[in-house]
Amino acid sequence: MLKFNEQQQIDTIQGALELRPTVEEIIDKVWDEGFDNVFYLGIGGTYASGMQAVTYMNGRSDLPVYVQHAAEYYTTGNRRLTEKSLVILSSVTGTTQEVVRAVKEMKEVGATLLGFIDKAGSILAELCDYVVCYEPLGTEQIKYFMVADRLMNRNGDFDDYEEYYAELDNYLAKGLVEAEKKADSFGLEFAQKHRHDAMHYFIGAGNQWGAVYSYAMCYWEEQSWLRSKSIHSAEFLHGTLEVIDETTPVTLFLGEDEQRMLSERVKNLLPRICANYTFIDTKDYPVDGISEKNRGRVLSYLLMHCVTQRIDAYVEKLNCHPLDIRRYYRQFDY
Amino acid sequence: MLKFNEQQQIDTIQGALELRPTVEEIIDKVWDEGFDNVFYLGIGGTYASGMQAVTYMNGRSDLPVYVQHAAEYYTTGNRRLTEKSLVILSSVTGTTQEVVRAVKEMKEVGATLLGFIDKAGSILAELCDYVVCYEPLGTEQIKYFMVADRLMNRNGDFDDYEEYYAELDNYLAKGLVEAEKKADSFGLEFAQKHRHDAMHYFIGAGNQWGAVYSYAMCYWEEQSWLRSKSIHSAEFLHGTLEVIDETTPVTLFLGEDEQRMLSERVKNLLPRICANYTFIDTKDYPVDGISEKNRGRVLSYLLMHCVTQRIDAYVEKLNCHPLDIRRYYRQFDY
Repeated sequence: MLKFNEQQQIDTIQGALELRPTVEEIIDKVWDEGFDNVFYLGIGGTYASGMQAVTYMNGRSDLPVYVQHAAEYYTTGNRRLTEKSLVILSSVTGTTQEVVRAVKEMKEVGATLLGFIDKAGSILAELCDYVVCYEPLGTEQIKYFMVADRLMNRNGDFDDYEEYYAELDNYLAKGLVEAEKKADSFGLEFAQKHRHDAMHYFIGAGNQWGAVYSYAMCYWEEQSWLRSKSIHSAEFLHGTLEVIDETTPVTLFLGEDEQRMLSERVKNLLPRICANYTFIDTKDYPVDGISEKNRGRVLSYLLMHCVTQRIDAYVEKLNCHPLDIRRYYRQFDY
Repeated sequence: MLKFNEQQQIDTIQGALELRPTVEEIIDKVWDEGFDNVFYLGIGGTYASGMQAVTYMNGRSDLPVYVQHAAEYYTTGNRRLTEKSLVILSSVTGTTQEVVRAVKEMKEVGATLLGFIDKAGSILAELCDYVVCYEPLGTEQIKYFMVADRLMNRNGDFDDYEEYYAELDNYLAKGLVEAEKKADSFGLEFAQKHRHDAMHYFIGAGNQWGAVYSYAMCYWEEQSWLRSKSIHSAEFLHGTLEVIDETTPVTLFLGEDEQRMLSERVKNLLPRICANYTFIDTKDYPVDGISEKNRGRVLSYLLMHCVTQRIDAYVEKLNCHPLDIRRYYRQFDY
């Protein structure tokens, strides 16, 4: 299977899950000291991951948790982010300029900063109060949801926490590689059909909204140089639907959380106005060992990523376009 | 001038400004009774207006004010919206189904609902605790910012409140029609050049982010049936920039608030990677009688709307496409 190293992917997921005692120790300390608000700080892909974690928590908890955009912070600011606030961030390089600038200002405010910084010794790793360094890519959501889960557990919103993580520890890594194998032929077919689309619409809701936002922008636009637009399922019905016709390429991500019903409205509509649509439904990917009631948590996002990873692998090969090159980003100053 | 009734537009703005004593009475009552959080409730265009008001307040106040998406409310919910919360909404028809559903649930929670409902007697007008009915279109932002301004005035964040509104009362309506006249030839030129674009990118930040979000979706997509994508200036630099080339149609909205610097980065970059860009800068539209320090408030948004209104008028005529017809929205059930 193209660009697929089964053992490495299992090790990556298992390694991320093994960060839990470290994360718990940090969150328990922050919890015991007390805090006013929690902010997931991000820009681009990390902003999308923050949206996922916050939407996830809003449905299950009354904890005051928000997404904070890095560039909006050092311009507009946020006076509710104080010396008693917890800020969670993630960075592969540890050098994203807008995040560095926001974090420096947050340090002056005195907020507590927890960074999942892949690169030890980087500027962001040095600036954070707590740093968790783990290099393998593709585990940001596991870390973000792990923080969310521990916070909710301490807040009394997640009684089955230990049971849930026992399921993930035992079954998640294997389940994801099996899902990816199952998605492989679909990924090839989708890539063959859509790799020259002039524009592709991606639609989703709940924790799939962050997923489509990130997939359209960080994968199609940034990596594959393919034009795409993400739109929330509920918002699609308030404008974007009018530009859809028979030939418009549209892909709907269906997840398994409480916003699924918003995407199901789009699923009902699309076949009546379009003949070039695709539904990707995480329900089509059963995972042994994970309870039905737990599928709407991080699993639903991760399964979708397994599917899109197959698409990307084939688009890269068929379009003869390496995903790691950039036309402009970090190529010159602006 | 096409689709331009100067006296009617002046009367519309002046009439909206005359709602102020009513709005002040309501907000003062809510203020005196106390509240925990303020939510601007919306979907589609009203969601965009809510984003504008919230971004505006975040830069100037520590009041706990948030945007609440209507469909996300009745799915994911928001446990921080309580019986002590103030919810502000706006609707032209008073029947938007997702908003009706959210409002019904919020009433059960016991939140205080302030509705700017154009249509008296509609379901939303009946459901709200306080209703302000004013039919002329295009005044949603004035109302939303009026609420924001009174809240900030009561919170001690806006000492020059009376002086500011004296400027608006005396000079805003006339200033906007003069700006629209000034923008007319640009609107025609832009419409002629871009009315058949396969895709058009709109970029903005600050209170112009809600403006580009709404303009791309509610005007280009929904009304003109033209494909477009909105992207925040800071996010544009984290993905979307990679799909821009010489011929890509890109329009940057430059406003006058604290996020202007984020758009100026895009302004610096675009000429180096694209030869089909347009900058629309509200600074190019001086308004007599409005102080420089007050331009970054609602005026900046309203000036941009004057410019885009000229574009829309000419696109409608040249494309032989009436802006008030819909292919799908409210045409059948889904």
